[in-house]
Amino acid sequence: MQFINDKADLVIEAIDGLIAASGGALARLDGYPHIKVATRAGWDRSKVALVSGGGSGHEPAHAGFVGPGMLTAAVCGEVFASPSVEAVLAGILAVTGEPGCLLIVKNYTGDRLNFGLAAERARALGKSVEMVVVDDDVALPDLPQARGVAGTLFVHKIAGAMAEQGAPLAEIAAKARDVIPRIASIGKSLSTCTVPGSPREDRIPAGKAELGLGIHGEPGVEQIDFAGADSAVATMAGRLPPSGGERVVLINDLGATTPLELSVLTRAVHRAGIAGHVIGPARLMTSLDMHGVSLSVLDLAPGEAELLAAPVPMPAWPGLAALTEPRVDPLPDGLTPIEPIPSENQRTRAVLTAICDLLIAAEADLNALDAKSGDGDTGSTLATAARALKRDIDRMPLADLTQLFPALGNALSQTMGGSSGVILAIYFNAAGDACASGASVPDALRAGLARVMEVGGARPGDRTMIDALAPALDALPQGLPAAALAAREGADATARITRAKAGRAAYVPEANLSGHADPGAEAVARVFEGLAGA
Amino acid sequence: MQFINDKADLVIEAIDGLIAASGGALARLDGYPHIKVATRAGWDRSKVALVSGGGSGHEPAHAGFVGPGMLTAAVCGEVFASPSVEAVLAGILAVTGEPGCLLIVKNYTGDRLNFGLAAERARALGKSVEMVVVDDDVALPDLPQARGVAGTLFVHKIAGAMAEQGAPLAEIAAKARDVIPRIASIGKSLSTCTVPGSPREDRIPAGKAELGLGIHGEPGVEQIDFAGADSAVATMAGRLPPSGGERVVLINDLGATTPLELSVLTRAVHRAGIAGHVIGPARLMTSLDMHGVSLSVLDLAPGEAELLAAPVPMPAWPGLAALTEPRVDPLPDGLTPIEPIPSENQRTRAVLTAICDLLIAAEADLNALDAKSGDGDTGSTLATAARALKRDIDRMPLADLTQLFPALGNALSQTMGGSSGVILAIYFNAAGDACASGASVPDALRAGLARVMEVGGARPGDRTMIDALAPALDALPQGLPAAALAAREGADATARITRAKAGRAAYVPEANLSGHADPGAEAVARVFEGLAGA
Repeated sequence: MQFINDKADLVIEAIDGLIAASGGALARLDGYPHIKVATRAGWDRSKVALVSGGGSGHEPAHAGFVGPGMLTAAVCGEVFASPSVEAVLAGILAVTGEPGCLLIVKNYTGDRLNFGLAAERARALGKSVEMVVVDDDVALPDLPQARGVAGTLFVHKIAGAMAEQGAPLAEIAAKARDVIPRIASIGKSLSTCTVPGSPREDRIPAGKAELGLGIHGEPGVEQIDFAGADSAVATMAGRLPPSGGERVVLINDLGATTPLELSVLTRAVHRAGIAGHVIGPARLMTSLDMHGVSLSVLDLAPGEAELLAAPVPMPAWPGLAALTEPRVDPLPDGLTPIEPIPSENQRTRAVLTAICDLLIAAEADLNALDAKSGDGDTGSTLATAARALKRDIDRMPLADLTQLFPALGNALSQTMGGSSGVILAIYFNAAGDACASGASVPDALRAGLARVMEVGGARPGDRTMIDALAPALDALPQGLPAAALAAREGADATARITRAKAGRAAYVPEANLSGHADPGAEAVARVFEGLAGA
Repeated sequence: MQFINDKADLVIEAIDGLIAASGGALARLDGYPHIKVATRAGWDRSKVALVSGGGSGHEPAHAGFVGPGMLTAAVCGEVFASPSVEAVLAGILAVTGEPGCLLIVKNYTGDRLNFGLAAERARALGKSVEMVVVDDDVALPDLPQARGVAGTLFVHKIAGAMAEQGAPLAEIAAKARDVIPRIASIGKSLSTCTVPGSPREDRIPAGKAELGLGIHGEPGVEQIDFAGADSAVATMAGRLPPSGGERVVLINDLGATTPLELSVLTRAVHRAGIAGHVIGPARLMTSLDMHGVSLSVLDLAPGEAELLAAPVPMPAWPGLAALTEPRVDPLPDGLTPIEPIPSENQRTRAVLTAICDLLIAAEADLNALDAKSGDGDTGSTLATAARALKRDIDRMPLADLTQLFPALGNALSQTMGGSSGVILAIYFNAAGDACASGASVPDALRAGLARVMEVGGARPGDRTMIDALAPALDALPQGLPAAALAAREGADATARITRAKAGRAAYVPEANLSGHADPGAEAVARVFEGLAGA
C-alpha cells in the first residue's frame, strides 16, 4: 500500500507535484502521458544544455536535479522503464540552442538505445548533441557492461557546473568522458523494493544483506551475513578500487534507510578513511523504498572539487563537504550546582522541619489516596524526600532564602526523581530567582508556581497540587490560617474534578477519580493546615 | 534489522556521523554518553542562541537544523526519550552569551520539565533564557495538551532568521509565542515505526491508514480506509483549521515515504488549495522509518514569509517555495520525422530488394539459430521488416542516400520495434549524417557502425552482428566478394564465442552457445554473400 492514486498516473502526478513545489523553477512539456519531460522554466538556451533521465523510481534523480548548475531537462520513463526515443528527442529539442546539448545516460541497453537514437535524430535536425554513458557500478567486475548508478550524479554536477560557467560542449563532454572511468559505486541492502502494483519480493532473508544489488531491485552479487553498520561499510569499501589521491564519496540512501542509520553509516565511512570529501548522506539515486545504501567514489582531478562544490538551489542536492573528525568542545562550567554554604536560621529550620514531619506523618494516607488514581506511591515519595531533607538540614543555607530555595529544589530533584522532583526543582529555583530580585516570600513562592505552570502546562482545575497551592499562596499575605483554609478548599474541590487534564491522572477513568482528592493537593493542604496549627 | 552497530551507541554514533559530514560547521560537547549536544562550530555567542532538542528518532530534527539562521545547539536524548536537565543545561551554557537564549520545546511532559529546569538553572547562573513550547498537533482536539510535532520547524526557522539578523531575545520570544498558536499539524500513516531493538508493531491493518498518529509511534485518533493519495490529503486537509489568509504548508515525510509518493502527495496538496507556499516535501521531523506523512500549516503574519525564505546552508532544510500550478510548455517542432520525398534509382532499388529477399528467404534458418540462444524470432523479425520495406519501397528517396539512410532507419525502427529496431535506426541515421558530410558509402556505413558500438556498448568479439558487419565493411572497399568472405568468417567465428558479452545472449549458459553462430551475424553474412553472388 502506497501514497499513490492510479498506478498508471503515478509518474505524471509525481512530476506535476515536483514542479508545483519548485516555486516556478521547473516546467514540463505538453506531452503527457507519453512524453514526460521536466525542464528548467524560462531556460534561454544560451548555454550548453544537459539532458538526463531514464526510468522513474530513482527520485530525486533525475528531475530533482533539474536547475541551474546541474540538468536542463530530465526525460522520465515509467517506473524502471526507459523513456521512448520521441520523449528524449522532445527533451533535447526543447532545451538545446546554439551551444548544443550533452546527454548523460546510465548504462542500460534501453536508455543507451533510446537516448542514442534521439541524439541521432536531433543531430539530423541540426543540433549539436554529445552523449556520455555512465557505468560506475563495480558490483559485477566480470560483467563487461557495468551498470550506471548513483555515481552518475558526479557527472551531472561537474558537467552542470561547467555548463553554468559557459564552457563549450566539446570541453564539457571531454570532461565527462574523463570523469566517468574514475567513478566507482557499490550498494548494499537489507531489503528489496516495492514496485507499485506488485508485492514486495522477499529475496533477502533475515540476518543477511545483499551486496552489489541494482537500482531496479536486481539481485546482488552475493548475500552475506549482516554484522552491523561498520561491517557493512567495510565490506563495501573492500569492493571499491584503491584511491588514487583526493577522493570524494557520495553516500546514497536507496530509499528507506532512516537518517539515523545514514548518519551511523557516514561515521563508519569517515572512520574507514574512504574519502576526504562527502556528498550526502541523502536520497540521491533511489530504488523506490529499498532499505539500502550505496557508496560512490570519484578520485578528483584538479578543479573538480570546485565544480562539485559550486552551490545549486535545488533542495535535493546536499552539497559537497569535507569529511572530517568531529570537533569536540569541552563541557561548559556551571553544570554542577555550587554546593551552598550552610548557614543557620532557627525559624526557617523550624518551619522546614515541621513541613517534613507533616509529610512523613501523611505517608500512608497519601499513598492510599494515590492508589485510587495512580500507583499509590505519592505518600512514600514525599516522605522519603522529607526524611532526606531532615537528614541534610544542617548543610542547608538556612539564613539566605535566595540560596535556600534553589538548594531545596536541587535536593528534592535528586531525592525524589521523576517528574515530581523536576517540578519541585523548577518551583524552588524560580522562587529563589524571584527572591534574588527582591520579591517577598509569598511573591517568590507565587513566581515559582507561575513558572511551574508555564513549564509543565498544568492550570488550576486540572486536578493537581496546583489546585491547593495556588489559592493558598494567594491567601498567604493574609496569614497562614487563611492560606490553610484556601488550601483545604482547593484540595477538597479536586475530589469533584472527574476529568484530570494533566499529570498521570489524565489517563484514569472518571469513575476512579470521583470522590477522592488529588494526593498532591491533599499534601499541600495538610502542610498548610499543619503550619497554621503549629 | 537496521544499519546500526550497538544499539546503546546509536545516537552518539549518528551525531558523530552528522558532524563528520558537516564540513566543520558542527561540533559537539565532550559529554558522551550522557550529554549529547550538537552545536555550531566556532559560535561566538554574539547573537541570541536558539536551543532545541528532545528525544532522538526524529532526524533531521533537531541536530540537522543546527546552523546559521536556525538552531545554535540541539540537545539529543536517546531514541524517543527526553534529554536530561544536565544535558540541556550544558547546551544552554555552551552557546549562550550576553544576548541570551531561546529554548524551543515540543510539548511533551519530559521535554517541558527537563528543558524547564535547565532554563531555571541557567537563569540562576545569570543567563537570559526564554522558553517556548510548541503544541501544533490538531489530531486530538479534545486533549488539553496538544503534542509538538513537525510544525515546530516553523518556529526554528522564523526565530532563527530573526536571531541571525540580530534581533533581541524578547522580540524573538514574543514572535515565537505569536507564531505558535497559528501552527496546526496533522499526520497520516500506513505503518508504525521500528524502534531499534524492538520488533515493529503491526497495528495498522492492510487497507487502512491511521490518522493523527504521533511522532513516537503513538496510535492515531482513528484508523480509516485508505483510498489513495488524493483522498489521504483530503482527509488531512479536513482536520486542519480554516485558513486565515496567506498560508504555508510544510510537507513532512515521517521516514519511509518514497520521493515518488511525496511528489504525488504534494500535487494533491496543491490541488486541494491548502496553501500558497510550501516547505518540502522532505524528511523534516521523522518517526524513524514510519511510512507516513504529516502536513503542518502556518497562517503568515507580515514579514514571516521573508523569514521562512531566508536561505540557510543546512542541506536538511528544503527552503520555502511558492506552490503553483505546474507550467506546461508546448512540445518542440521536429518530433515527427519529415516524410522524405520519394525518388528513383534503379540500382539502389535492386540492391535493397535483393537484401530484403535474402532476409525473407533466411527466415526459418535464422529462427532456428536464434532458438539456440534466444527466443527464436530473429528470422521472423528481420523478414517482417524486409516485407514491409519492399511494400513501401516506392515511397523511399532512392536517388539520395543522404535522405535514404535516415528514412530506412526510421522505417526499420517502426516495423521491427524493440532493441534491434532502435539499433538499426541509430545505424542508418548516423550513416545518413556521414553521407551528408560527404563520406563515401563504405565510410558512411562504417560511421553508422561506430555510432552503434558507442551507443549500444557492444564491441567485436561480443557475439553480435557486429562480428560479421565490422570486417565486411572494412573489406567493402575491396569489393563485395571480399566483404562477403569477411562477413562469413566473422559469422562463423561467433559459433566459437561461448561467452556473450552484450545482448540477450549474455544471460545464456555457455554450453547453449557453443557451435551455433549468432543469428544477427549470420544474417549479415547471408546478405553480403547474396549480394556478392548476385
